[in-house]
Amino acid sequence: MKYSAENIENIIYRYLPEEEGYPVSCIRAMNYAYKAGGKRLRPMMMRMCYDMYADEADGVIERFMAAIEMIHTYSLIHDDLPALDNDDLRRGRPTVHKAFGEDMAILAGDGLLNYAFETAAGAFAIRPGDVSVENAFAVLAAKPGIYGMIGGQTLDVEKTGESLSSDELVYIYENKTAALIEAAMMIGAYLGGAAAEDIERIQKIAVCVGMAFQVQDDILDIEGEQEVLGKPVCSDEKNDKYTYATIYGLDKAKEYVETKSMEAYELIKALDAKHDEAKQALMELTVKLIHRNR
Amino acid sequence: MKYSAENIENIIYRYLPEEEGYPVSCIRAMNYAYKAGGKRLRPMMMRMCYDMYADEADGVIERFMAAIEMIHTYSLIHDDLPALDNDDLRRGRPTVHKAFGEDMAILAGDGLLNYAFETAAGAFAIRPGDVSVENAFAVLAAKPGIYGMIGGQTLDVEKTGESLSSDELVYIYENKTAALIEAAMMIGAYLGGAAAEDIERIQKIAVCVGMAFQVQDDILDIEGEQEVLGKPVCSDEKNDKYTYATIYGLDKAKEYVETKSMEAYELIKALDAKHDEAKQALMELTVKLIHRNR
Repeated sequence: MKYSAENIENIIYRYLPEEEGYPVSCIRAMNYAYKAGGKRLRPMMMRMCYDMYADEADGVIERFMAAIEMIHTYSLIHDDLPALDNDDLRRGRPTVHKAFGEDMAILAGDGLLNYAFETAAGAFAIRPGDVSVENAFAVLAAKPGIYGMIGGQTLDVEKTGESLSSDELVYIYENKTAALIEAAMMIGAYLGGAAAEDIERIQKIAVCVGMAFQVQDDILDIEGEQEVLGKPVCSDEKNDKYTYATIYGLDKAKEYVETKSMEAYELIKALDAKHDEAKQALMELTVKLIHRNR
Repeated sequence: MKYSAENIENIIYRYLPEEEGYPVSCIRAMNYAYKAGGKRLRPMMMRMCYDMYADEADGVIERFMAAIEMIHTYSLIHDDLPALDNDDLRRGRPTVHKAFGEDMAILAGDGLLNYAFETAAGAFAIRPGDVSVENAFAVLAAKPGIYGMIGGQTLDVEKTGESLSSDELVYIYENKTAALIEAAMMIGAYLGGAAAEDIERIQKIAVCVGMAFQVQDDILDIEGEQEVLGKPVCSDEKNDKYTYATIYGLDKAKEYVETKSMEAYELIKALDAKHDEAKQALMELTVKLIHRNR
């Protein structure tokens, strides 16, 4: 199982800071959140996209894999804060502000976002002057920001408790969720040496996967069982958030997930990948994501 | 006045995001904080260090100037939050969470930190494959992080209301304040094309300037007048924070500022700069910082 969450974790955990020195409390909070489990979907898909084109892996791709998961993790820490979603539990454990205090949760989130760029910047020393690393960096800096993830998060926060137009819903999903998956897959392709044409296709695939993933999340939030999810069922409803599933209904939502996943599947199939194993793995993952229960 | 705060602002404001589109509330909060005035010391010193070695300026140095001020600004927004310093006023105006709400203040801080890297990453397209830009980027990613500014902030937060050892005090000052000034000056030197030896010297200068700057801040906090500072006098004492000035007394603190500033002055004088005007400006600024009243 080359692409299991466990194998991905074995790689990305190596880039975490040591829990020592004066800032140890902040580092402990960062690592607590980072090691809380999860699907490791973003570094996993990044690696698959890389392996489709590259002959072997080096510290460059590993650093970016670790970095994208740091950005994902920071966004969860800050999302959970009392001023935002005010969640006490995440993956069955106390959220960071519950375990370490609100001050440390703010700093740990900041720390992870910053450390993501610090970790990725270590790639410059491995391949100095390499434009594909610079391109990967530019994507890592753009997609999580105000014209990506934070943009989606902003509208999501503002619209809590209000109904959403379909444009607004799409904007939130494309940015809050899909943007980071786009970043993951595009970075893998850039670093692996994919042609510009394939990188464009991969971006399209990532949007399909990201949208399907988020709507599946909405469905699970309604249908899922608390012990499987590790968080209270219907937590979105509790917060009066409108989702694809609550607006259009479960049947439409399931149809949407199916359609988007199949679109992604066919687009992956058409890619001119150098290595078929990674391509197969990415196709299988796309299908698996529809049938997940957490 | 080539290096006036106004002229620096004329450059760095050009890199702010437009206040439009779905994430407009977050962008407004970001720009509100960024445009709140201030000495613009970091981009100013970055530019002086650049001009000591470079023949002309381009978008690369401008982007990094804007970026370092974004990082400084984000740190102020998050520092002011209720869970941290809980300040209502900053430079005579309501802090971001007072003006835009706590949720937007968290997002605006995240947004600025991220946008700093996004803005700086735009430099790759201007000078692709240029190792000095990559080096500048690595410094921009390292100094504000857990082994720099956030590290200092972590210990500072943890030690609020407790006495500090001299090692702890030095650690906090070197990281919470000096690290970002180090970043500013080193980036200017890297991008301007300074030799490795001069970059090392400039880092030393930056530590002296940063330490002197912070202790002068402590002195002003005790001696300053509220209307000049734009924040309540003795706000540090109110929060039970120990500072150089409260631990060692005002006389020792003033002596320290004088010594460190003169050390910086002499080190700048000894630099092998290509352009004397910028070097003179940096020397003058170092002296001016001791005599500031805000």
